[in-house]
Amino acid sequence: MSETVPDLKELLEGLPKNWGKWGNDDEVGSLNYLDSAQVLKGIATVRAGKTFTLQVQMGNPDGDPIWPGRRPAQRMNVLDHGHFMSGKGPHFPGNMEYCDDMMVMYLQGSTQYDALGHVWYDDQIYNGYDAKTTIGGTAKAGVLPIGERGVVGRGVLIDMARHRGKDVLDKGETFTHEDLLEAAASQGVTIEKRDILLIRTGWIGSFYRRDPEEFYKDFKEPGLTFSPELVRWFHEMEIPNLVTDTIANEVTIDPKSGVALPLHSALMRNLGVAFTEIILPDELADDCAEDGQWDFLYVAAPLKVVDGSGAPVNPIIIK
Amino acid sequence: MSETVPDLKELLEGLPKNWGKWGNDDEVGSLNYLDSAQVLKGIATVRAGKTFTLQVQMGNPDGDPIWPGRRPAQRMNVLDHGHFMSGKGPHFPGNMEYCDDMMVMYLQGSTQYDALGHVWYDDQIYNGYDAKTTIGGTAKAGVLPIGERGVVGRGVLIDMARHRGKDVLDKGETFTHEDLLEAAASQGVTIEKRDILLIRTGWIGSFYRRDPEEFYKDFKEPGLTFSPELVRWFHEMEIPNLVTDTIANEVTIDPKSGVALPLHSALMRNLGVAFTEIILPDELADDCAEDGQWDFLYVAAPLKVVDGSGAPVNPIIIK
Amino acid sequence: MSETVPDLKELLEGLPKNWGKWGNDDEVGSLNYLDSAQVLKGIATVRAGKTFTLQVQMGNPDGDPIWPGRRPAQRMNVLDHGHFMSGKGPHFPGNMEYCDDMMVMYLQGSTQYDALGHVWYDDQIYNGYDAKTTIGGTAKAGVLPIGERGVVGRGVLIDMARHRGKDVLDKGETFTHEDLLEAAASQGVTIEKRDILLIRTGWIGSFYRRDPEEFYKDFKEPGLTFSPELVRWFHEMEIPNLVTDTIANEVTIDPKSGVALPLHSALMRNLGVAFTEIILPDELADDCAEDGQWDFLYVAAPLKVVDGSGAPVNPIIIK
Amino acid sequence: MSETVPDLKELLEGLPKNWGKWGNDDEVGSLNYLDSAQVLKGIATVRAGKTFTLQVQMGNPDGDPIWPGRRPAQRMNVLDHGHFMSGKGPHFPGNMEYCDDMMVMYLQGSTQYDALGHVWYDDQIYNGYDAKTTIGGTAKAGVLPIGERGVVGRGVLIDMARHRGKDVLDKGETFTHEDLLEAAASQGVTIEKRDILLIRTGWIGSFYRRDPEEFYKDFKEPGLTFSPELVRWFHEMEIPNLVTDTIANEVTIDPKSGVALPLHSALMRNLGVAFTEIILPDELADDCAEDGQWDFLYVAAPLKVVDGSGAPVNPIIIK
Repeated sequence: MSETVPDLKELLEGLPKNWGKWGNDDEVGSLNYLDSAQVLKGIATVRAGKTFTLQVQMGNPDGDPIWPGRRPAQRMNVLDHGHFMSGKGPHFPGNMEYCDDMMVMYLQGSTQYDALGHVWYDDQIYNGYDAKTTIGGTAKAGVLPIGERGVVGRGVLIDMARHRGKDVLDKGETFTHEDLLEAAASQGVTIEKRDILLIRTGWIGSFYRRDPEEFYKDFKEPGLTFSPELVRWFHEMEIPNLVTDTIANEVTIDPKSGVALPLHSALMRNLGVAFTEIILPDELADDCAEDGQWDFLYVAAPLKVVDGSGAPVNPIIIK
Repeated sequence: MSETVPDLKELLEGLPKNWGKWGNDDEVGSLNYLDSAQVLKGIATVRAGKTFTLQVQMGNPDGDPIWPGRRPAQRMNVLDHGHFMSGKGPHFPGNMEYCDDMMVMYLQGSTQYDALGHVWYDDQIYNGYDAKTTIGGTAKAGVLPIGERGVVGRGVLIDMARHRGKDVLDKGETFTHEDLLEAAASQGVTIEKRDILLIRTGWIGSFYRRDPEEFYKDFKEPGLTFSPELVRWFHEMEIPNLVTDTIANEVTIDPKSGVALPLHSALMRNLGVAFTEIILPDELADDCAEDGQWDFLYVAAPLKVVDGSGAPVNPIIIK
Repeated sequence: MSETVPDLKELLEGLPKNWGKWGNDDEVGSLNYLDSAQVLKGIATVRAGKTFTLQVQMGNPDGDPIWPGRRPAQRMNVLDHGHFMSGKGPHFPGNMEYCDDMMVMYLQGSTQYDALGHVWYDDQIYNGYDAKTTIGGTAKAGVLPIGERGVVGRGVLIDMARHRGKDVLDKGETFTHEDLLEAAASQGVTIEKRDILLIRTGWIGSFYRRDPEEFYKDFKEPGLTFSPELVRWFHEMEIPNLVTDTIANEVTIDPKSGVALPLHSALMRNLGVAFTEIILPDELADDCAEDGQWDFLYVAAPLKVVDGSGAPVNPIIIK
Repeated sequence: MSETVPDLKELLEGLPKNWGKWGNDDEVGSLNYLDSAQVLKGIATVRAGKTFTLQVQMGNPDGDPIWPGRRPAQRMNVLDHGHFMSGKGPHFPGNMEYCDDMMVMYLQGSTQYDALGHVWYDDQIYNGYDAKTTIGGTAKAGVLPIGERGVVGRGVLIDMARHRGKDVLDKGETFTHEDLLEAAASQGVTIEKRDILLIRTGWIGSFYRRDPEEFYKDFKEPGLTFSPELVRWFHEMEIPNLVTDTIANEVTIDPKSGVALPLHSALMRNLGVAFTEIILPDELADDCAEDGQWDFLYVAAPLKVVDGSGAPVNPIIIK
């Protein structure tokens, strides 16, 4: 780690930005790359008609995998058969009975899309909107426009854990875009321009599921790590969406600069790359390993939460 | 209305049930019809690469369209630029800032999948599970297995409002499966076996949006209305999923029998047909009317809420 | 109403302030007047050993009386006999069973103490703290110090509705400190220095209870109305706490200046007078009218909510 | 511990019950002992005009002391100066600004009164009401009648930790009513008939505050322990209210019988003794030790939560 941790402004100086590229009113950034050609390219990958869903379970009484400090979702019944057994249920002509429930949740407390306005530095969020627009609700570059738009295209899964012969990457273990390319090559798949990029580390499926207590202890996720070259690669490849099975999509602290979560700023704030976090791709990965097909149709649409900083989502893969 | 309102048990006597058809452990019912052949059939409809999302906005400060008695979702920031402006934000090395928020919601308070166990009569839910399993949480035939599975197939939209030359159907206005077939014919589309059936009445898009106060007054939705023939038609057509732009997918009170919401029991509890409610299909309908293509790939996966009676969803249509 | 509505800064120019009077760290303001002498003075009023509680019911399924825009409290069971009847309850050695519940609420959505920092103008709250201290939580002059301290003293109830021969005051009806003195005289009680001042208008007990729909329509509460003389009277009388049966303790719009809720600023922000709102004093008033004793021991302590802008309270009167 | 843990029904056979004593409609039990004579007896103890509040802080970002499985209260701002700084605040004539917040909480997640219907065995709660009345809400013997009534009387504090020369009692450490009498004698105070009984163990003030992690580990509270003699003593002494600084007011597992929390059933369900839990009496105890006065006026009123199984409270002591 460098002796003095630089400011993000300094660290990212001179690196590419997509602000204004899709107009001054744009709120969905690199998802604009997903035009109808990309939709059809995704469709073209489908062969067997297999489907997979990628959300982790939520509202689990035993807890959900979340960023430290947030609290797990909590579901509560407000009506059920108990009410009818005790004469407290509402009466409908014909005697239908039903159950009903509520939930309290962090909008980023499960598999979720970050709004592009979710993180920032230097008082500006994606596309140059004033950071004050986040006050009381993400009024600009919120999750709503992403929910309205939806995300459909060709997805490619890179299984870094499998590539490194591990069940799960280590705490703080890093990899670069070049590692991704190497893994892709060994998987026999090519990351193409405008692909939705999915990465598996085993962090949720193998580690959280096995030992939640150890998972949170001295919290330090593995993941992609910052370099100017990596940022330029994402820019040139026009990656619309980064999707991983960690809580923050990147290594917690960049070991070189000491900066926390620099890719959120370099990729999301500056390039408008959508971040999808906390997926559970293990079953999908097993299937890809088995049939050798690592590309597929990726379909996802976060909930249309007005002014949300993010929103939960259950992405579907079709192969 | 008949002089005496019959019990659902009496009303539905002798009508078909799919209990046990997919095993005694089944929790997703007619969604089982959506096998890989149906997935590929949906894929085959895609021509232009157009996409549409169907969820209504949620957590709107002005209120969400909901069943009377439920309360609209409420989103609240827990962190934003205000904290950083006043020195209250957390510090990250490199000075990243971010916003974060929570939401309180009814699980059925937006566009949503009902769990098959959401309604019942005679102390048994879908597939014969004891209604006591709903106590404290929908432990059997909950929404979780639907979220785990996802819903992918060929969808067909029937625009009943457009067919009847109306902006929106009237309060309590009904239609039958034969009306659906007639509308389909006039649209130039065929409802095929195992199609996901989408219906537009204009109820949310035209009516709720125009006059929420009038919407809730003397609440009586338009929709499909019960007949033994209609139930048999759903059964024979093996319809996996009924998706509409009303809050309860059927006329509120069956005008003939006086029973409230009989199709919830006849189709969902007995046949295992999944119900998707409160969609906003207006933009999709306009597009279908314009290009004449009323079938498409339907992709949806409700949130994987453990023991949920239902869960919000943002379905995606690909044409 | 004046042609141009003045700013609060202009309206309150030259009127008294208690900032700094109890030190620069003070967060409870005029409650400091309630020293042990005042406690003993309150004790000395007790004769018969009668008690009354003043909170309105909360979490009522039919709704609670609240300021428009807030939402009523909602209580939800998370465990009850239904769980045990269906084998879902936790097992304790000896077979104890129990019920448990949660609540979602606005902290100011029931009978409640405002924190002194709850309202402000000109970027400063009570005692000169920066209004930025309210961001994300009322860190200065919050409700916590009031909860820690508690409020005990001699209370006097002025029944303005009864004095004016009405069941309930009209919408927007006003009264002044001189009206209070006149009413006190006719009740045969004297408002003494440092008394806790309770006022009854019938607004909650008579009006809200009778017609909640009409209550919210064209919302305009009756109450005390601003004048420089009134502010000086509160200052000279060293009134520690103003307690009323309206939602905002004063007339909604000052009919003379057109300013909304000026007493919140004149009394709470500037003098540090604690505001207790939404009490239900009707049973107490009937008793006072009957026995002729309008003074009593007032005891109240809002919940100790960390950084709360206010907190619910159930005050107790002992006569 | 006995080899076989007896059922509560068996354990409490033949012990006194107060069911029906105050009528079949009674919902407040032994609080009925607190008549005006007891109110005046409490008033008579007041000498110096000192006051103390007993609630623990709630909604603390670092967590609140709670029964394992419950979750701490969470407070969230919905409006504050940040909104006004960014032009998002509501405008009031005169330019008043304000902050507003919400809270999600367990009703028993802070200092609180249990409803008498909170625990039961053998399908009946206090006064013989059917346990089914608890479904969906504590409709009988809920906390509402306690909130409506309020609790005022002579209180006596027994400082068991101080009596045993400890900062805090050990995990699982027990004491009996005879220990209470011995401690009272050494404090120089007499527990009289109908006194509100407060007990200090140091559990919250000394232990939780020092080491929350250790507090929850292998959770086993110290406290009063069951014996037939103890139950008879409470009955004969007509104790209306038991108030302690532990989460459950009694030793977690009765070491003799192995039954969990038997006093909840023996005292609350059967005798109607109100339980007040999780108080923080440390400052009060220090003051009593200093001035030698261990009796005082106790005033408390839980929030009037409709159908609540319990409700938070901030009791006030006046000496």
